[in-house]
Amino acid sequence: MSLLPPQITKAIEEFSKLPGIGPKSAERLTFHLLRSSKANPENLGQALLSLKHELKYCRTCQMVALEEQCELCRSGARDQSTILVVEDPLDVVAFEKAGYKGSYHVLHGVLSPIDGMGPEQLKLRELIDRAKLGGIQEVILAMNPDVEGEATAAYIRSQMQAFVPKITRLAHGLPMGADIEFADQVTLREALSGRRSL
Amino acid sequence: MSLLPPQITKAIEEFSKLPGIGPKSAERLTFHLLRSSKANPENLGQALLSLKHELKYCRTCQMVALEEQCELCRSGARDQSTILVVEDPLDVVAFEKAGYKGSYHVLHGVLSPIDGMGPEQLKLRELIDRAKLGGIQEVILAMNPDVEGEATAAYIRSQMQAFVPKITRLAHGLPMGADIEFADQVTLREALSGRRSL
Repeated sequence: MSLLPPQITKAIEEFSKLPGIGPKSAERLTFHLLRSSKANPENLGQALLSLKHELKYCRTCQMVALEEQCELCRSGARDQSTILVVEDPLDVVAFEKAGYKGSYHVLHGVLSPIDGMGPEQLKLRELIDRAKLGGIQEVILAMNPDVEGEATAAYIRSQMQAFVPKITRLAHGLPMGADIEFADQVTLREALSGRRSL
Repeated sequence: MSLLPPQITKAIEEFSKLPGIGPKSAERLTFHLLRSSKANPENLGQALLSLKHELKYCRTCQMVALEEQCELCRSGARDQSTILVVEDPLDVVAFEKAGYKGSYHVLHGVLSPIDGMGPEQLKLRELIDRAKLGGIQEVILAMNPDVEGEATAAYIRSQMQAFVPKITRLAHGLPMGADIEFADQVTLREALSGRRSL
């Protein structure tokens, strides 16, 4: 690759570090930025440089925020006795669209020893401290339904069941629009065991 | 998305402009950069800001270069009477690995009206001027074998056949390791019509 100038190989190298982007995609993205009039390397570069700049985490729910406390926590209209625990800030956006009215707590990850993510890397201490202050009726664990998510939910439950009256998790089952014929076994088993009377 | 701070939405927006990266991937990349210890938004940001900085195009072959003329053109060891015309700088890297010993010309794109790429957007004028200087025995057209590549090759041929003794294109046919059973019709037809005696 010594035929290419160092600033190009450097950009290719940095792109390759991103998830889902291999060396070939990194080359394609770099040369696209060099050529395209729409996507501009300066714009993306500036956006990335200021990404962590002035970025704060809400002191209550750990959501990404511009001030010490996020808008949702400052608003008096939210039910503070229920905490919905999610993996990352985009999950908050999703639950807001779904009309959830309680408060949140963002873990910023899940337990995953293989990626070096232990309890200390998550915003778990903050959740426990918050629950110990009292006034919490229910903690809803809303991790993704995968191995890491289930393990994280089980761990949080073991840490919090002593002082939180009610710990729940999201219902698992068939998503809207699914086709039973193509649903996997685990989903069908969950859908059966979680059936409701009409 | 107003729940997310502006620097995050800006990064997501800029990532979405890249080819093959939709809004969801852009979100994933942005939050990965926020969280990961390996990929760093500052490193990628700096790399992108300096991408076009001091980047020159070789005055002879239009290859990306650090100086006025690229290493390959300055080297006296290349056969200057043969020009291999390619779409982009990575193709030069590929042909160098394959052991090609002549000189190159990089078009920086192919004709593609739908993307606003006409003859003026390519480094085609430079190629014609170079060929008119004389001393060129053969121009090898090495565009990708797709619709835009074929159209570009046909256009270049029409522009240059008056003053270049020999214009060729790469052989089309079965690639090494291919399975005839799964080859497409066009490739098989090309492989048949281009057959060689043993």
